[in-house]
Amino acid sequence: MNHATIMCDMDRPIEPGHFSTCEAGLEKHIVGCCSVDFPVAAVLPAGGSGERTGLSTPKQFCTFLNRPLISYTIQTFERVPWIQSIVVVVAKESLDLMMDIVHRFHHTKVLVVHGGSTRHRSIFNGVCALSKREDGTALVKPKVVIIHDAVRPFVEEDFLLKITMAAKEQGAAGAIRPLVSTVIAATSEGYLDHSLERTKYKASEMPQGFLYDVIYKAYLSCSESDFEFGTECLHLVLRYCGTNAKLIEGPPTLWKVTYKRDLAAAESIVKGTLSESACVVAGGSKRAAELARVLQKSMGVLGMEVDVISDLIGDNAKSLSSKWNFILISMNIHSLSEVEKTLSMLEDADRALLHPVVIIWVHLKSLEDDSSVNEERAAMMDLASGAKLRNVLVYGIQLHHSKEAQLWERSVERLTEISSALIRDRTPALIGQLLQA
Amino acid sequence: MNHATIMCDMDRPIEPGHFSTCEAGLEKHIVGCCSVDFPVAAVLPAGGSGERTGLSTPKQFCTFLNRPLISYTIQTFERVPWIQSIVVVVAKESLDLMMDIVHRFHHTKVLVVHGGSTRHRSIFNGVCALSKREDGTALVKPKVVIIHDAVRPFVEEDFLLKITMAAKEQGAAGAIRPLVSTVIAATSEGYLDHSLERTKYKASEMPQGFLYDVIYKAYLSCSESDFEFGTECLHLVLRYCGTNAKLIEGPPTLWKVTYKRDLAAAESIVKGTLSESACVVAGGSKRAAELARVLQKSMGVLGMEVDVISDLIGDNAKSLSSKWNFILISMNIHSLSEVEKTLSMLEDADRALLHPVVIIWVHLKSLEDDSSVNEERAAMMDLASGAKLRNVLVYGIQLHHSKEAQLWERSVERLTEISSALIRDRTPALIGQLLQA
Repeated sequence: MNHATIMCDMDRPIEPGHFSTCEAGLEKHIVGCCSVDFPVAAVLPAGGSGERTGLSTPKQFCTFLNRPLISYTIQTFERVPWIQSIVVVVAKESLDLMMDIVHRFHHTKVLVVHGGSTRHRSIFNGVCALSKREDGTALVKPKVVIIHDAVRPFVEEDFLLKITMAAKEQGAAGAIRPLVSTVIAATSEGYLDHSLERTKYKASEMPQGFLYDVIYKAYLSCSESDFEFGTECLHLVLRYCGTNAKLIEGPPTLWKVTYKRDLAAAESIVKGTLSESACVVAGGSKRAAELARVLQKSMGVLGMEVDVISDLIGDNAKSLSSKWNFILISMNIHSLSEVEKTLSMLEDADRALLHPVVIIWVHLKSLEDDSSVNEERAAMMDLASGAKLRNVLVYGIQLHHSKEAQLWERSVERLTEISSALIRDRTPALIGQLLQA
Repeated sequence: MNHATIMCDMDRPIEPGHFSTCEAGLEKHIVGCCSVDFPVAAVLPAGGSGERTGLSTPKQFCTFLNRPLISYTIQTFERVPWIQSIVVVVAKESLDLMMDIVHRFHHTKVLVVHGGSTRHRSIFNGVCALSKREDGTALVKPKVVIIHDAVRPFVEEDFLLKITMAAKEQGAAGAIRPLVSTVIAATSEGYLDHSLERTKYKASEMPQGFLYDVIYKAYLSCSESDFEFGTECLHLVLRYCGTNAKLIEGPPTLWKVTYKRDLAAAESIVKGTLSESACVVAGGSKRAAELARVLQKSMGVLGMEVDVISDLIGDNAKSLSSKWNFILISMNIHSLSEVEKTLSMLEDADRALLHPVVIIWVHLKSLEDDSSVNEERAAMMDLASGAKLRNVLVYGIQLHHSKEAQLWERSVERLTEISSALIRDRTPALIGQLLQA
């Protein structure tokens, strides 16, 4: 009942900024100079109550850009081709919510199981779930298990690889980071006793990787007290299996979403990634093509890489699966049909499943064009309201073509600013507006 | 040359959510049950290069909402009435920039001095600057010095008080926080040696407080090696003055802006504070007053506390110095003059010096009113462009009064969403727009 199919999803659009090292169809995945020719699985303990965020929802289920944090973490693991399955361990009362998330965001490698009363019991449940099905038949037991927090969504594939390879060779491996603060020991009366020499100590972070047999044996052997109070898997395998974990320094992106402010930080990272590039569709008109070129340059100055194409047909249709932002330039008041067409292409490509896509419809009016905009406005709002339900944010910008250089430059400047802000902020409240550049 | 006047600024508008415990004119400041009847100063080392943010600007000078991070931290200390002076220690090459910040944001308690080659030398420079003027004459030496990082802007007055009182009584006091990660010791080959028992250790944070004579003596006595490699002031006073610092657990708000993502988090915290409440000015019309009441309720549901007043005259003018957001409802197309009036009152009150103020002009049109909006649009954009230079963000929203209940409800809902988003996001690119609700 509470498990989803396990399969490798090669067609999933890849996050901008991440490049798949997957060669579809190959059993062996070549990543850099290493090859992962053994089964790997991940366990994501997600049973925390998230007291520290200061929010009522546990932080792994907090939502930004229409998606709960845990789905971002799952996505990070799903797009790694050499990870076969992901066990998410949640509290009993969150099982339905978690299954709903798995279905809603089409997560295909995920198995959801319920947790135990402590972190270690939950991880052990997750580890056990990897070697048996609910009906008791055996699964392909992974060689290496990666354990990772559900609230560290930004771990990168190359680091997961390092941990995996080290775990295979050494039996266990864990991420470390330099200490941010000096660590001190306090006397029982609350006074400074001594401070630790900072260079000798490290912060132990996630992910950690283990040979399946090592972590399984450690949990089988460990005491009730370990299950109850232990915090470090690395410590357990050292104690019960004599395995000294290899420590690997990880990047700052391993950081854990802990407080409410971290959710804002996570949102800003995702928004930053989504607004790295845009695609301007200029249509057939010369004037529109000129504006597209100017926009390409001015948005480039603001750090956004802009492709200019004339349409979304043939080879150009590739943009639909690589860009998160589309600027459609049009000379024609009736050209909302272009927006509609783009919308339905995005829907066919299932593009907006994981991230909201932005469409900015730029209406370049000739000076003579003094048509009333009221009808246009209403049509735009209707269109945008419908699109929002499909996770596409549609905005409109109008500008008048002007022969007066200064006026025109001012308009283009404003067009650049507004477009950049709409793409960066992705504010749902402003959809369907016709802004003036 | 590089020092600003030192005085207590009682009239500075207080941050929303913070309540001044200052009783202007009293020598002794009563805060809770404790009294600070001795001179207190702060030293903010701000010489860091900010490598970890991944930005070229040192993080203390990174800007959000038009103001550099360090100015937020200075403001936090300036509004504490019992702190007499704040020494900011910066690298030589940042002296001009820092002086410019002090002048631009009217910081009045600040003395800027240049730092040394290490953190400890910089702090010592700051400490020394508190006991002598540039011309060699003596200042009133503080009894207690608080040392705080320039990149921890959210420390609260009550915590500064705790540190100050403990420092006065014990000679030294420092903030601690529970460890976020397990701390482990690595072997020289990079393997796990052992992990520390988490409950026995704490992260040492800022602020720290010292009797002036204690910290001064510690620095006079300490070795070159301490100046070069030492990280903990608490350690120095223990070693050279035999002073065991009192450790006080602080709130998560002590957190240090370290990475680029932390700047986004800091910005979201400030934006959150600025959008806690708004003031709706409804004018004399009954219809506008009704809309104001509805808006008050609907924005309340979204967590924003909304006051409704009829004008900004007399007692109502108090809102000008307590609110950061104004919604002016008007039935008249020519009523941009109301916006202008509000703008000039805000300017007189120097309200937008530290934070951008938002004015939303809501034009409630009757059904018959089908006036062309082009002129209105241009006037609005001009007005908003001028206001932006004064750190006031002006936006417009139009809605038609409708007798059809469903249409009207939809309009009010959209008005609520748009207003909330404009107040929360404070996007400069969208000023001067006339949005449709």
